[in-house]
Amino acid sequence: MPPCLSIVIVDTLKKILGTAPKTLHEPRFQGNEHRYVRDCIDSTFVSSVGAYVDRFERELADYTGSRRAVAVVNGTAALQVAMQLAGVRSGDEVIVPTLTFVATANAVHYLGATPHFADSEMGTLGLDPVALREWLTHCSEQVAGGTRNRYTGRPIRALVPMHTFGHPCDMEGLMAVAHDYGLALVEDAAESLGSRYQGRHTGTFGKLGALSFNGNKIITTGGGGAILTQDEKLADHAKHLTTTAKQPHRWEYVHDEIGYNFRMPNLNAALGCAQLEKLPGFLVSKRHLAVAYQGAFANTPAVHLVQEPVGCESNYWLQALILDETVADQRDAILNATNEAGLMTRPAWTPMHQLAPYRHCPHAPLPVADSLVRRIINLPSSAGLV
Amino acid sequence: MPPCLSIVIVDTLKKILGTAPKTLHEPRFQGNEHRYVRDCIDSTFVSSVGAYVDRFERELADYTGSRRAVAVVNGTAALQVAMQLAGVRSGDEVIVPTLTFVATANAVHYLGATPHFADSEMGTLGLDPVALREWLTHCSEQVAGGTRNRYTGRPIRALVPMHTFGHPCDMEGLMAVAHDYGLALVEDAAESLGSRYQGRHTGTFGKLGALSFNGNKIITTGGGGAILTQDEKLADHAKHLTTTAKQPHRWEYVHDEIGYNFRMPNLNAALGCAQLEKLPGFLVSKRHLAVAYQGAFANTPAVHLVQEPVGCESNYWLQALILDETVADQRDAILNATNEAGLMTRPAWTPMHQLAPYRHCPHAPLPVADSLVRRIINLPSSAGLV
Ligand SMILES: Cc1ncc(COP(=O)(O)O)c(C=O)c1O
Ligand SMILES: Cc1ncc(COP(=O)(O)O)c(C=O)c1O
Repeated sequence: MPPCLSIVIVDTLKKILGTAPKTLHEPRFQGNEHRYVRDCIDSTFVSSVGAYVDRFERELADYTGSRRAVAVVNGTAALQVAMQLAGVRSGDEVIVPTLTFVATANAVHYLGATPHFADSEMGTLGLDPVALREWLTHCSEQVAGGTRNRYTGRPIRALVPMHTFGHPCDMEGLMAVAHDYGLALVEDAAESLGSRYQGRHTGTFGKLGALSFNGNKIITTGGGGAILTQDEKLADHAKHLTTTAKQPHRWEYVHDEIGYNFRMPNLNAALGCAQLEKLPGFLVSKRHLAVAYQGAFANTPAVHLVQEPVGCESNYWLQALILDETVADQRDAILNATNEAGLMTRPAWTPMHQLAPYRHCPHAPLPVADSLVRRIINLPSSAGLV
Repeated sequence: MPPCLSIVIVDTLKKILGTAPKTLHEPRFQGNEHRYVRDCIDSTFVSSVGAYVDRFERELADYTGSRRAVAVVNGTAALQVAMQLAGVRSGDEVIVPTLTFVATANAVHYLGATPHFADSEMGTLGLDPVALREWLTHCSEQVAGGTRNRYTGRPIRALVPMHTFGHPCDMEGLMAVAHDYGLALVEDAAESLGSRYQGRHTGTFGKLGALSFNGNKIITTGGGGAILTQDEKLADHAKHLTTTAKQPHRWEYVHDEIGYNFRMPNLNAALGCAQLEKLPGFLVSKRHLAVAYQGAFANTPAVHLVQEPVGCESNYWLQALILDETVADQRDAILNATNEAGLMTRPAWTPMHQLAPYRHCPHAPLPVADSLVRRIINLPSSAGLV
């Protein structure tokens, strides 16, 4: 009898990571973090305005090649405002992957809209443009003003691909679907800072894109996010909306629409500026780890590592092992053995269409996502592990 | 001819504040801010969990005498979740003062509810319970399940007093109105950390209360807020809702309702812990400033300083000069002269019922708020000014 898969996996991980406990992902502060944060506090500008916010926005725009970046309080808020500015309104539907973190669906809900879940591709883990086109052909009809779900009668307004664990989706295919069905494209690039599709940074293909700098992301601001856009007017509007929609005035408080307090505090932006300086190094380190994992698991039957899609450069934010269907029933045993051994692993998210609050929402057939969810195991992924 | 009022006011302010420029309100970091923030970064726990968040919540609860405090990303988020937990639902109306910062009304709107604006009292600057009772007698009717606006047909679900500039409202009167009309009481205590009504801390009278630690408040976390409540179950629910409603599990991601990413990052809580240690000193300093302003303006005709209401202890967060009706037409000249002189002043907010996005909302007669808005001038108010 061959040794049980969970023992093989624990042993293989230990060979690469050593025997000390490892978290799934933790941040690394070895640059100017202390310096910039100290400087920020000394300036007294720790809150909603300040030089680090401006600098962080400028540097994010430069790094991603986006014309503009608007720093906000977190990735969820970035998504919500990005969708609102893309035209999503109460009563609309928005296509999102079922295989995503709950924030993607929540952001749709906050706008009074309904998420409509679509399937993923095996290769990218992201939305499958071929399956999506087929589904839309079936479930939608063209009406004045756009695409309508023929079953619910609601407008399908936007398409929100998510770059899972940092691996870019098939943007060419998805842009074509968005174009053909008149859907606004908004990218959930929360996990993919540093990832490129055909040389272009994720989050810059859609009308708007959203980044996250939560503590578990490739760089962190404590909590934070950003809206990316190529459109100056949308960027200005994003800034306005996320800063309570107050008109500039020496002393009057006039708010010309219903905005949000979604500003990123300068304190958090200071941390972000230091982290951004370290991003290139994090990317190298994560790529090394991916190579190490791939080598180590090359001869393990029935498992493989997710690799960057062809034509893409992934940030390898979160490493993912995929179990073959034949051993999918061992997922929980593997999760258990690795976590017991102090090597933190986790499965993919419960897919959105299985969560109680979203169970009633429209969805396409979801065979690939259903399969992936039973087979994905995320491995320790912090920068600096190897 | 007597010297023009704006010159008198500039001169009086300079006597107290000196001639160097003064902002309206700025934070002060002279305690453990650097130490705690450094320690937080060194711990690598800068994000959504961490020891400083727990400590800040515990210390806020101790300080305010609230059974629980739940730290969140800002005061607006605190208000939104507090109202939701108090039972506010889409389609409801919520009574809020027209004389408030726009966040109070926005939080109502985010829940799909409609703000219903009520008038203030001259003495407290907060909601007037006598006028409110009169208005409700006129505009509402009792139906199964509570109070209904007889003109709009919508349920009036909650009452949200705000403690303006840190001066407590007439809570006894407002609690009686809330009780008699079956309205959930939620306090907007964003401005009143440190203020007490009959010995009890503001924000602890209602079912829930909201604090803000924005950069302009008496203490700051960069951006931040907290939900106060005496009810353990509501506090646990607030924590759940503000942390994406994820069920505790070693690895599964199950969200059992639609939550929010409204966590306060540990980095911001670290700053908050240091600031909270300094709060007693800030309160003393602000009280000195209030006394100094009162003395200095005692002989200026046609103006007076807002003083803490009888039976209250105000935090004197923002000092406010009130012009007599006879000189209200000089408000802008005074704002201009003081700001030109480098002494930052500002008027009250544009009242909610005059803002474009809220102009259509129901409101009571608002004579006092309308008068106050033409007459309030906030003066430089930072701790440490005298
Ligand atoms: C796919 C995805 N979307 C959105 C978010 C939301 O970002 P944040 O946690 O900063 O609100 C995250 C990260 O948590 C994410 O992984
Ligand atoms: C009365 C009032 N309510 C709510 C808020 C909202 O707090 P925050 O700015 O932290 O979102 C503020 C402060 O800005 C306020 O003054």
